Amino acid sequence: MKIVVAPDSYKGNMRSSKVCEIIKLAILQEQPDVEVLTFPMADGGEGTVDAVVEATGGRFQSLEVCGPLGEPVAARHGLLPDGTAIMEMASASGIELVPAEQLNPMKATTYGTGELLKHLLEEGHSSIVMGIGGSATVDGGVGMARALGYRFLDDSGSEATALADIASIDGSGVFQGLGNAHIRVACDVTNPLTGPNGAAAVFGPQKGATPEMIEQLDAGLANLWKLADVEGAPGDGAAGGLGYGLRAFCGAEIVSGANLIAETVGLPAALEGADLLITGEGRTDGQTASGKLCSVLAGLARDRGAKTLLLSGALQGELNPFLDVFDYAFSISAGHTSLEACIAHAPEDLAFVVKNVMRILYKQLGRTY
Amino acid sequence: MKIVVAPDSYKGNMRSSKVCEIIKLAILQEQPDVEVLTFPMADGGEGTVDAVVEATGGRFQSLEVCGPLGEPVAARHGLLPDGTAIMEMASASGIELVPAEQLNPMKATTYGTGELLKHLLEEGHSSIVMGIGGSATVDGGVGMARALGYRFLDDSGSEATALADIASIDGSGVFQGLGNAHIRVACDVTNPLTGPNGAAAVFGPQKGATPEMIEQLDAGLANLWKLADVEGAPGDGAAGGLGYGLRAFCGAEIVSGANLIAETVGLPAALEGADLLITGEGRTDGQTASGKLCSVLAGLARDRGAKTLLLSGALQGELNPFLDVFDYAFSISAGHTSLEACIAHAPEDLAFVVKNVMRILYKQLGRTY
Repeated sequence: MKIVVAPDSYKGNMRSSKVCEIIKLAILQEQPDVEVLTFPMADGGEGTVDAVVEATGGRFQSLEVCGPLGEPVAARHGLLPDGTAIMEMASASGIELVPAEQLNPMKATTYGTGELLKHLLEEGHSSIVMGIGGSATVDGGVGMARALGYRFLDDSGSEATALADIASIDGSGVFQGLGNAHIRVACDVTNPLTGPNGAAAVFGPQKGATPEMIEQLDAGLANLWKLADVEGAPGDGAAGGLGYGLRAFCGAEIVSGANLIAETVGLPAALEGADLLITGEGRTDGQTASGKLCSVLAGLARDRGAKTLLLSGALQGELNPFLDVFDYAFSISAGHTSLEACIAHAPEDLAFVVKNVMRILYKQLGRTY
Repeated sequence: MKIVVAPDSYKGNMRSSKVCEIIKLAILQEQPDVEVLTFPMADGGEGTVDAVVEATGGRFQSLEVCGPLGEPVAARHGLLPDGTAIMEMASASGIELVPAEQLNPMKATTYGTGELLKHLLEEGHSSIVMGIGGSATVDGGVGMARALGYRFLDDSGSEATALADIASIDGSGVFQGLGNAHIRVACDVTNPLTGPNGAAAVFGPQKGATPEMIEQLDAGLANLWKLADVEGAPGDGAAGGLGYGLRAFCGAEIVSGANLIAETVGLPAALEGADLLITGEGRTDGQTASGKLCSVLAGLARDRGAKTLLLSGALQGELNPFLDVFDYAFSISAGHTSLEACIAHAPEDLAFVVKNVMRILYKQLGRTY
């Protein structure tokens, strides 16, 4: 039997590599001759570089770049065996790099993300996968584009200091390597660049924006959009408009994080000939499962004739819809009555459910049917 | 496939008959051609009469008898198709029949239990199964014995008014039908009649006994034991010493409630040729599972070559020991983080786990092994 283990992280609890380890061990304890392939997964958010590098046997690197507020930061990223580079914008321009009291989306820049991108292209990694969750910025990717040689000028021909002041965009000095780049952005956010569902209105407040700032930022992004003149697409509003900036200035493609990461780590190929996919996450809502990592993976498995088992910290809402998406779905909870207990016991609870499922599969009932 | 469903109640949540219904429906929804036999179970405690009557297709009856404090109560009991009568002492002499502020173990009597017992014997039911959980009494079964014709006399030859005053026991007028009776007491309590683990010390306080009363009652039970002169046995301390009284005055046998009820409802016979036993309860502790209903049933199943699936509201303590007792064990919780949510969602959560297990059993993986 061949089982592919490809869980998301159990957010706030266990990394996906840890989850893989627990599931694999439990399978082999019950049935040592099962072939178990593990793929710690991520959807483009936090942990994506770790998951992909670990799954592919790539290597980690670090580059000192300009942080969100100008201070130097060491931006960790990964190089995969096939030459693809994987990076998260958050490692250069992320909200975690800024003390809460210093958050300021009027100043925070994606410049470091551009530096890292340029460096990777210079190093010959023309295929780049980028996760863009967790940004501290609402700069529409202008900082990133500047690092790549774009100039954003105001009325007087000087570098504009605010999005709203940009009067023209000069791409004449842009880094040449960008022409051959194949940049794919892992993104499951579908917000547009501007408006009530846009980058400033929806994600601004968590980045420190006041209502006045939101208004200014939204107007600034609208100004940028008008000047760059690239048609809008879902996801433009991700990472403070970096989604739009990557498309407009780098020719990047925004794709489903789940599918992109699955493909990057080679999951579709691993599922060929597999009997069972085991996936999981900390919490799953049956009503909104569509499009989320675990359900995307279930689709990949189904297309290849493998069954799918979801092991979730908590199955929320109506239960029967889960069985439309997954062949089997269990909560790992042993019946704890507090979140703290669920989290504390998750490793052993997870292993226990896996063992039980393996026993049902292997210690078949007395008769055959 | 033949599946036997025999759960305990999920205490404070679902009766065992309800649990049976949910499990059966979920099995048949996934696999309509399974043969499903349901046995709502109990271990001699509350719900035993209901469970046994429902499982055997018996009928309910009611008899007006003397309640714990002398008031009339309607004592519900059951008659099974094979002529066996099933009763719970609690229906005649139970703590639920007494308002909390009137609880008084110096006065509460098992007389009504004796009346019901006598009535059943008079009606020709020589085989009697009695559950003795939930008593309001600490009378050593003296009230019960008086109803059957025993006399408990004091120094002056009058009816003694307290256990400690009994000077002699006169069995000359005892009800003749007692001679042919086969009375089995379903009891999983192993306390002795007297002493620090005895009926007064351990169960007295919940029946309203003060420390002084406990001392008097314990001395009174010791006096009774000395006079009746029947060797002690585990369970004598159950139901305020009714365990001892039934042995000493009625020749009753104290047996494991789980085994007795299983046998009474015909579970061992049903398990012959079964593939799977599904049992369950509200909470299961792996360390103390031994001897409890679900583990006793698992033993019956194992002896007959059937696998056992435990579906518990909560698996408590270390998990791996469960797999020494049961072939498979799941908590039904979908991962709720409060007891209230666990209870509220138990019916659908239970059905969902059953469906999943059936799918693993039936919707086998793509290949055969």
